[in-house]
Amino acid sequence: MRYRIFLAGFLAAMNLAASEIDLDALKKDYRRPTDIPQNPDNPLTPESIELGRKLFFEPRISASGLMSCASCHNPSLNWEDGLPTGVGHGHQKLSRSTPTILNAAWNQANFWDGRAETLEEQALGPIAAAGEMNMPLDKMLEVLHAIPGYEELFAEAYPGEGITEETVAKAIANFERTVVSNEAPFDQWIKGDEEAISETAKRGFALFNTKARCSLCHSGWNFSDSSFHDIGLKTDDKGRGGFLGFESMNHFFKTPTLRNVAERAPYMHNGSEATLHDTMELYNKGGRVKRDTLSGDIRPLNLDTDEIEAIIEFLKTLSSDDSEMHMPRLPTLIAAEN
Amino acid sequence: MRYRIFLAGFLAAMNLAASEIDLDALKKDYRRPTDIPQNPDNPLTPESIELGRKLFFEPRISASGLMSCASCHNPSLNWEDGLPTGVGHGHQKLSRSTPTILNAAWNQANFWDGRAETLEEQALGPIAAAGEMNMPLDKMLEVLHAIPGYEELFAEAYPGEGITEETVAKAIANFERTVVSNEAPFDQWIKGDEEAISETAKRGFALFNTKARCSLCHSGWNFSDSSFHDIGLKTDDKGRGGFLGFESMNHFFKTPTLRNVAERAPYMHNGSEATLHDTMELYNKGGRVKRDTLSGDIRPLNLDTDEIEAIIEFLKTLSSDDSEMHMPRLPTLIAAEN
Repeated sequence: MRYRIFLAGFLAAMNLAASEIDLDALKKDYRRPTDIPQNPDNPLTPESIELGRKLFFEPRISASGLMSCASCHNPSLNWEDGLPTGVGHGHQKLSRSTPTILNAAWNQANFWDGRAETLEEQALGPIAAAGEMNMPLDKMLEVLHAIPGYEELFAEAYPGEGITEETVAKAIANFERTVVSNEAPFDQWIKGDEEAISETAKRGFALFNTKARCSLCHSGWNFSDSSFHDIGLKTDDKGRGGFLGFESMNHFFKTPTLRNVAERAPYMHNGSEATLHDTMELYNKGGRVKRDTLSGDIRPLNLDTDEIEAIIEFLKTLSSDDSEMHMPRLPTLIAAEN
Repeated sequence: MRYRIFLAGFLAAMNLAASEIDLDALKKDYRRPTDIPQNPDNPLTPESIELGRKLFFEPRISASGLMSCASCHNPSLNWEDGLPTGVGHGHQKLSRSTPTILNAAWNQANFWDGRAETLEEQALGPIAAAGEMNMPLDKMLEVLHAIPGYEELFAEAYPGEGITEETVAKAIANFERTVVSNEAPFDQWIKGDEEAISETAKRGFALFNTKARCSLCHSGWNFSDSSFHDIGLKTDDKGRGGFLGFESMNHFFKTPTLRNVAERAPYMHNGSEATLHDTMELYNKGGRVKRDTLSGDIRPLNLDTDEIEAIIEFLKTLSSDDSEMHMPRLPTLIAAEN
């Protein structure tokens, strides 16, 4: 099914590239959804979200005692870390940049190489990874069992299931589903407010969908097809191909959302591009050339300076004034013994 | 002046220890203040507090890029880290526990050894310390200058002063002054609500001020005399004496606040006591013996089990349902260049 969706988007984009653009028709593809997608096996409940919020901010489930999910997926920095690549246990430098949690509920795959299909599958990975939080999962469960407050929180969120790897993952996943970017000027425009964004930004949006071909991958309201592409960055990281063991998908990485993108520098899976201008230049020079299975396009985009500026002005309309995250008060280690 | 205050508290406590306790008279010494103490050279303004809040949560002023003041002074854990001793750059273990920021506005000295008199003097220490955030201050200023959003924030908070070590310290200090524990059941009792705490807790409060002699050091509404004492822990850490170079003050450490103390395990400057029970046992056995300049008391306290339980029940009434901290959205590194 994912393939069908992808193909339809591709054909639509190609048509638009070839013909006079119909903004009103296009805008229909960018309407904000009204509901958050749920996992039928893990329905969104206030109790599971609240437990997940606590676990997301819980540093005691890391080997250092100092790192939580929120250390790298920092709510103050659009749920990323603002660094070229992540920093893990012992402050070691990791090889890929920290992906945002923003709108993760809409992900059809997680991690840059898509190795986890659901957020539930994703959630425990960075906790256990030696280079990240470095916490063996049996030890994680020991820690949570030793903090008396958690027993009740788990019982409320997942009655009868206890404190297990599965319930930890489910709770974190459900909290992450609630991390949704607020309405941006772009969304107000989509809803009909013509004053919400500038005429230049509208021109940028049209270019984004036609000549610049951005929407081939950055499609829909969240600006991601949740699929994988090689955009021609020369690195040793095999990405999706390394995970699948398919040479044909070497150097394929997941399309990140562009929500709040102007606030999320640096860019790319390896943080190699410092600014939106740098990133646009990369694509404009034909960065997508190598193994671009989408378009087979080996030409540079030939965008002129004004066109690049227009696209960047459009991208800035995707920044929303998101609510400040409230930090939970965490249960204390030995309250019951005190 | 500090000496005079200390002496008065000492004499008052001695009188109470010797005579039948008059709870109503005693309660007068524990009324919550109505105003936050300010530094006349750095008046509390909404702009300075907001700038300080951002800087307090700013990981980019650490060498790792991942640590902020809030990493160790974690709002989710009563502005401490829940660990026996702090964890710093590269996740190295530090030798002293992380002191809370809670009610720091009332501190007359900062750090366990009191080496900084004001919060302004304190604020830059952990940023620059190689073992903590490991960020040379000239580099810190470079980073802040490179994040365009900060220029305006500093201009609003400290017009004409620019981004300097001094303004960074002043802003962080003013934010910290706003971190005040909310009213606890104990405060409601002090205000006159006799139902707010149990009769056992009231008995514990009386013992705290008499037989157990806790109030000799843990005095006043914030339960600290902001002074330094040797309570007989056998460690190599010279504390206040090491800082001052006075052998007579070796092993003296600052009296920590007891606000939210039941939620702030483990205890002591080296995190050596896991629970309030352990801590009470330490004192009960005469832990305060060595070089206790306050009372010269070399006897154990001889509290029985019921008395210890009563004191712990009282200590629990100092826990307040503090507001959740809102995490700021931080200015982005290269917004101006995007």
